[in-house]
Amino acid sequence: MENFTFYAPTYFAFGRGTEMQTGSLVKRFGGSKVLIHYGGGSVVRSGLLDRVKKSLDEAGIAYVELGGVKPNPRSGLVYEGIDLCKKENVDFVLAVGGGSAIDSSKAIAAGTVYDGDFWDYYEGKPVEKALPIGTVLTIAAAGSEGSPDSVITKEEGMLKRGASGEAYRPKFSILNPELTQTLPPYQTACGVTDIIAHLYERYLTNTKDVETTDRMIEALILAMVNEAPKVIADPNDYEARANIMWAGMMAHNNSCGVGRSQDWTSHGIEHELSALYDCAHGAGLAVTMPAVFTYVTDHDVMRFAQIAVRVWGCQMDFAHPERTAKAGIEALRRFVKSIGMPANFEELGAKEEDIPKLAQTACLGSGKMVGFTELSEKDVENIYRLML
Amino acid sequence: MENFTFYAPTYFAFGRGTEMQTGSLVKRFGGSKVLIHYGGGSVVRSGLLDRVKKSLDEAGIAYVELGGVKPNPRSGLVYEGIDLCKKENVDFVLAVGGGSAIDSSKAIAAGTVYDGDFWDYYEGKPVEKALPIGTVLTIAAAGSEGSPDSVITKEEGMLKRGASGEAYRPKFSILNPELTQTLPPYQTACGVTDIIAHLYERYLTNTKDVETTDRMIEALILAMVNEAPKVIADPNDYEARANIMWAGMMAHNNSCGVGRSQDWTSHGIEHELSALYDCAHGAGLAVTMPAVFTYVTDHDVMRFAQIAVRVWGCQMDFAHPERTAKAGIEALRRFVKSIGMPANFEELGAKEEDIPKLAQTACLGSGKMVGFTELSEKDVENIYRLML
Repeated sequence: MENFTFYAPTYFAFGRGTEMQTGSLVKRFGGSKVLIHYGGGSVVRSGLLDRVKKSLDEAGIAYVELGGVKPNPRSGLVYEGIDLCKKENVDFVLAVGGGSAIDSSKAIAAGTVYDGDFWDYYEGKPVEKALPIGTVLTIAAAGSEGSPDSVITKEEGMLKRGASGEAYRPKFSILNPELTQTLPPYQTACGVTDIIAHLYERYLTNTKDVETTDRMIEALILAMVNEAPKVIADPNDYEARANIMWAGMMAHNNSCGVGRSQDWTSHGIEHELSALYDCAHGAGLAVTMPAVFTYVTDHDVMRFAQIAVRVWGCQMDFAHPERTAKAGIEALRRFVKSIGMPANFEELGAKEEDIPKLAQTACLGSGKMVGFTELSEKDVENIYRLML
Repeated sequence: MENFTFYAPTYFAFGRGTEMQTGSLVKRFGGSKVLIHYGGGSVVRSGLLDRVKKSLDEAGIAYVELGGVKPNPRSGLVYEGIDLCKKENVDFVLAVGGGSAIDSSKAIAAGTVYDGDFWDYYEGKPVEKALPIGTVLTIAAAGSEGSPDSVITKEEGMLKRGASGEAYRPKFSILNPELTQTLPPYQTACGVTDIIAHLYERYLTNTKDVETTDRMIEALILAMVNEAPKVIADPNDYEARANIMWAGMMAHNNSCGVGRSQDWTSHGIEHELSALYDCAHGAGLAVTMPAVFTYVTDHDVMRFAQIAVRVWGCQMDFAHPERTAKAGIEALRRFVKSIGMPANFEELGAKEEDIPKLAQTACLGSGKMVGFTELSEKDVENIYRLML
C-alpha cells in the first residue's frame, strides 16, 4: 500500500426531510450570505427550492440565486456566478441539485476568492482556497457531495476537465433520498452507472496487496447491482434510493481508493463523448467502460477475473482465467444494458467519423492517457472503435 | 434506513514514517502545549516516543508527558492526567499507543475542560467539549483513532463503561503500519478480533433493507479473514498490517454502521470479563461473540445465514437456513481459534462461580441489555454459561 493522507470533513445530514436543516447548517459552518446555485425546473417545480429558502429565512441567512446549470456544466455560467458572488459579497455557496450544480458551485467558490482565471484550476493548479460550499443533493451519481473534485466544460473548444483540492470538499451535504424519487429511470440508471464507474476506476490499480480497499469497492458495486433494479422497477422505493445514495458518496469520497494507484482513463475517454454530444455522463460511461476494460484486460487478467468472481458471480476458470475476466466484463455490459443504458456509439448519438478528433482531444497535451495502463492516441482510437 | 448524521473530520496520515509529521499536525490543528500520553515500555524501547518528541521539538511545540496507561485503562490515571493538563495549561492531548492510550487521552481531554467529574460522561452524559486530540497508533484494533468513543474502567467496583461524543473524534491520527510489526501474534490477533467484533455489532441490526452497509461490513470482515493469517505467520508483513490498519479504522468510524440499529451486547458482556479478569478485550470478545450469536440466532436466522454465506463461504441450506446460520457461527469460532484466541472461560482465566456477579454487573441499572435483542439478567447468565 502506498502512503496516503485522507481527510473528509464533510458533515452529512441523511434522510427524510433533512433539507429543512439547510439554514442551520449554513450558519454552523459560518455562512451569512449565500449563493443558491441550481439547474433547471425540477428543483423549482418540486418545491425544493422554496423549502431551502424557507430554511435559510428561518435561520436569518441572506441569499442570492443563480439557476440554469446544465448537465456537463459550462464555464460561462461559472464566470457569471463568480461576478455575482463578488458583487453581492457572498460568503457561502450552496448547490441544490446533482453533480452538475455541485461542480459548478465548486468552481464559483474557488473563482470568487482567486485573482486569476478560475480555469487555471482545471488546467492542473491545485485548489487551495475557495468559499465554503454546502450541497442539497438531488441525484445519487457524481459523488461530488463528498469529494474534493469538480468537472467543468469550457465552451471554447468544448474542453471537459477536472480540478481537485481539499477546499472543494463541501462543509456539509444534505442527502435526502426522497428528493431522488422523482428522477426518471434513465437518469437514475445514469447515476448508478457513474457510481459503478467511480468504483471500477479505483479497482483498476497497479498497487499490490490492497485487499481491504478491493473488498470495499466490490461491496459497493454489489450493493448497486442489488439495489438499482429495484429503483428502475419502482422509482418510489425509498430504501433502495437510500442505499444507492450512501453508496454513491462512499464510492467517491476515496475511503475505498486510498493507498493505491487508480485508473480514470474511462472517465477521460467518456468526457470527450459527453462534451461533444452532450450525452449524460453515466450513459457515456456505460458504453466506454466495457470497451476500455476489454482493451486493457491483458494488462492484469487476474484483477479482472477477481472482480468477475467476487462481484459478478462468475465461476473461476482456473485453466483459462482470461475467460473469467471476459465473462465479468460481459456481465457488466449486460447489467448496464438491463437498467436501460446505451450499448454503443449509435445508441449514444456518437459518430464514427469523429473518432480521430475524440482521441486527439482526449490525449491533448501529452499525446497519451496514463492510468491502469499507458494509452497512446492510437490506443484511444482503438477503444472508441470497440464502442461501434 | 433510518435518518442519520455522519461527521468524521479526522485527518489521517497513513504509511511508513508518518510519525515524523506529528509536530506539524499538532500545529495545524491548533496545539501549542501537548500532553503526550502513552502506556508502557514498548513505545519507549522502540524509539517511537523519541521520534515523536523530535517531531514536536522541530515544530516548536512544548510538551509534558504521562505514561503508564494499562490495557483496560483506569480512571485513576485519567484523574492524574486531568490534574497535569490543568496545572501545565496543556491545550492538546496526544495519544501514542493503542486503544487504551487513546481512550484514556480522550477522557483526559474531556475532563480537563469540564468542571464536574469526568466519569459523568461514562454514565451517559454526551461529550460536547474536550481539548483537541491527536493519535499516533501502534495497534490496529479499537478503532478509537477515528471514532467518537472511549471506554474507561473505574477502579471502584471495576466498572467498565463507554462514553461518546463528536468532541472525541481525533483531529488527526497517524497510522504507520510499521509501528505494529513488533506486536506479538497474540496481541495482533486480539486486535483483529476486536475489529471483527465492531463489524458484527453493526451487522446485527433490526433495520431492514440496509444492503450498502451490510456489504461494507462483510467486505471488511472478509479482508480480516484474508489478512490476519498472513500477519500471524509473518509479523513483518507490512502490506497485511496496512490492510488491517485501514480496515480497523473503517470498521469503527461508523461509515458502515449509519442508518441502522446496532447491537453492542457482545461488547457489554465482554467488558465485564476484561474488567474483572483484566484479560485482553479482543480475547474476551473471541469467547463472547460465538456465545451471544448462538443465543440470539433465532431472533433473525436469515441475517446469520446471510453472513454465513457471504463472509464465511458456507453453502446455503435452503431447507434449513438455521443450519447455515449455525455453520457461520462455527466458522467464526474456528477462525478466531486459528489465529490463537481462547475458546472458553477456562482459556480466558474466567471462573464459573463469578457468572451471577458478571451478569448482574452487565445489567446494572436497567436489569437488562438492549441491542439486537433484549436480554434479561438471566439471559446474560445463560450466555456466560455457553462460554464454559
